[in-house]
Amino acid sequence: MLLNADRLSRLMAADGLQAVVATSAENVTYCSGFWALSQWVRRGPQTYVLLPDPKLGEPVIITGTSMLDLIADQKPWVRQVRRFSDFVIERDEEAVLDAIDQHHAELYALPDERTPLAALCNAIGDGGLAAARIGVEELGLTPGYLTALRDAFPGAQFVPADSIFRRCRAVKTEAEIERLRISARIAEQSIAAALEIAREGATERDLALAFHARTVLEGGMPVLGCIGFGTRSAMTNVQPSDRALRPGEIIRFDVGGRYAHYRSDIARIGVLGEPSAKAAAYHRALQAGVRRACHILRPGLAVRDLFDAVVETVRREGLPHYRRTHVGHGIGLDGYDAPDLGPNSSETIEEGMVLCVETPYYELGAWGLQVEDMLVVRADGVESLMQTDGSMVML
Amino acid sequence: MLLNADRLSRLMAADGLQAVVATSAENVTYCSGFWALSQWVRRGPQTYVLLPDPKLGEPVIITGTSMLDLIADQKPWVRQVRRFSDFVIERDEEAVLDAIDQHHAELYALPDERTPLAALCNAIGDGGLAAARIGVEELGLTPGYLTALRDAFPGAQFVPADSIFRRCRAVKTEAEIERLRISARIAEQSIAAALEIAREGATERDLALAFHARTVLEGGMPVLGCIGFGTRSAMTNVQPSDRALRPGEIIRFDVGGRYAHYRSDIARIGVLGEPSAKAAAYHRALQAGVRRACHILRPGLAVRDLFDAVVETVRREGLPHYRRTHVGHGIGLDGYDAPDLGPNSSETIEEGMVLCVETPYYELGAWGLQVEDMLVVRADGVESLMQTDGSMVML
Repeated sequence: MLLNADRLSRLMAADGLQAVVATSAENVTYCSGFWALSQWVRRGPQTYVLLPDPKLGEPVIITGTSMLDLIADQKPWVRQVRRFSDFVIERDEEAVLDAIDQHHAELYALPDERTPLAALCNAIGDGGLAAARIGVEELGLTPGYLTALRDAFPGAQFVPADSIFRRCRAVKTEAEIERLRISARIAEQSIAAALEIAREGATERDLALAFHARTVLEGGMPVLGCIGFGTRSAMTNVQPSDRALRPGEIIRFDVGGRYAHYRSDIARIGVLGEPSAKAAAYHRALQAGVRRACHILRPGLAVRDLFDAVVETVRREGLPHYRRTHVGHGIGLDGYDAPDLGPNSSETIEEGMVLCVETPYYELGAWGLQVEDMLVVRADGVESLMQTDGSMVML
Repeated sequence: MLLNADRLSRLMAADGLQAVVATSAENVTYCSGFWALSQWVRRGPQTYVLLPDPKLGEPVIITGTSMLDLIADQKPWVRQVRRFSDFVIERDEEAVLDAIDQHHAELYALPDERTPLAALCNAIGDGGLAAARIGVEELGLTPGYLTALRDAFPGAQFVPADSIFRRCRAVKTEAEIERLRISARIAEQSIAAALEIAREGATERDLALAFHARTVLEGGMPVLGCIGFGTRSAMTNVQPSDRALRPGEIIRFDVGGRYAHYRSDIARIGVLGEPSAKAAAYHRALQAGVRRACHILRPGLAVRDLFDAVVETVRREGLPHYRRTHVGHGIGLDGYDAPDLGPNSSETIEEGMVLCVETPYYELGAWGLQVEDMLVVRADGVESLMQTDGSMVML
């Protein structure tokens, strides 16, 4: 199961919540296992999961009638479904339906509750939650719906729950870690595919095509492809252009895709030929920073101590003026899950967190350098999801 | 320019608005030409465009400091920029910066306005709009910010503007149509690539990989890949599985990607060998429905008359029980732009609309069939963005 159910229960209890409502694509998938296509590829379509305290009832998926086929096919662990809106599906009356189509037909036979809001209100009412304290994620909710919920249930209390989901998702289940492991591996394979064609005259766009195509062929979906050459590598979010690679130039990759809805985000540096002494020295310092994180990361470590240790290491190991606003972030269904690894964080590292630890350095007029690894926090230290270390790859 | 500036001005005037604020990724790109990566690949990061009535002032982009490199590289037509939040970039003091890096350095030297909300408030105040009527798109805005704006400017009036952007984007500029043309072509090429490997034993997943890989190699980004065989083709949103293709089976594609941020969404049917007489007849009827739309589409046509004509044609041409809730939708930066082509629409077809006209038919236990074309409404009729007609492809 993707959902860290015990953690969510504890977070709900701490906030005195009898139920939570997930509304964003990420949290609907997280809370139910259901991936509602329309919600993932567009802005606006509504799918929810209402999750009561397990003592009070069963969770329920609320989705549009046109999405029911995906429930039948995906078999999410949340089994109760409510549907809304009109959508036409016919049936071959002479055919014997297979199990998936049979389930689809049963879901289609559920009453049409007309609108997402009506279906959600019915779920709350039928769930005996009309006077409950309910956490609602605002991010995915149609503007105005939160007010409408309050009007519909004057005896209930609706409070924003975005931060509860964010805190819950910070500690991954093994099912999530397995997806992140594959996602990270695909990103590394895709960088290797791009480096294979990196020679004088190849363009940033050539490398990006090779990168994304490999991601697709390994079963991933492309998301992030910041690939820049030479001075363009100093651009934080560099988008591939027709700029051709020249001898001695840095290639910076800050890239990642999605596998089974889980993101990757890693950074590696290549160089065509020999790097300058300065680039090589700076890069070793940045790499030492990430290595330091690998050595000290463990449950109980304060995030701000991690930040200080990484920055201090980079400075000591050869980049004395190094400054950063963070040295990474969690990763999961979103590219930036909790925690942010910043200097003012009051958070503590926990077992099961999956972190992107990174030490980027952008110098306009020169180049950008970066090491970014995906790491799992285990009881006794770190499990790296990387197959390669962050050394500069000389081509 | 992507923005249909005259149309937006008219819509603003009709609503008595002195300014609008775009907050979603799509509308920020639409209103400024600026593609802010963080906003496109995650949920939460804020970038805005404040667009005053041209008589009252210049538009301004409000974005995070870490996004400034993309403004320098993309050269959006909105030239005024405000930045917020801390982000570290160094500079090689011995290097002569090229024009892009120079612009980036200048943007970086702008004052840091700390938060998205503060920067937006400053832009409103400095723009002389403290007592204006301002339309704000709610969809991309951090929950709570609209209330905060009202508190900050008690003399102003803030009204939801989501529908203004939606109505504006319904009529495309030629720059948008050019992107949609390429996006549509890539989708057709990608279907062709998938059909090339469609033989007995090939899986849905094999075809999906071929489809998405071709999209990448043609310069697009994969988004939508509903590809199903046999009875699975009746699933509206079928996601590729390991199901292998068998002789005589239908292959349904409802697919599309993104090119230069513009979506494609088309549907085609293949069959391995000969289709059944029923499938062939139904498919001809569905195709006749789309062909009818091509014949009658012109500025001034009522959307509901289009709907009625398409459904009536399908029924008359061989699928007498055909029912639908819509026969398509607009397409642009979103997969479902306005208008929806439904039976209860009060909208009218306008010159410059780009429409996905579709006649899907899903029969559980049998198969799904579908024709979906991307069409531009011109002064005297339709320009199709398709290179292939919707005939069933026999393999």
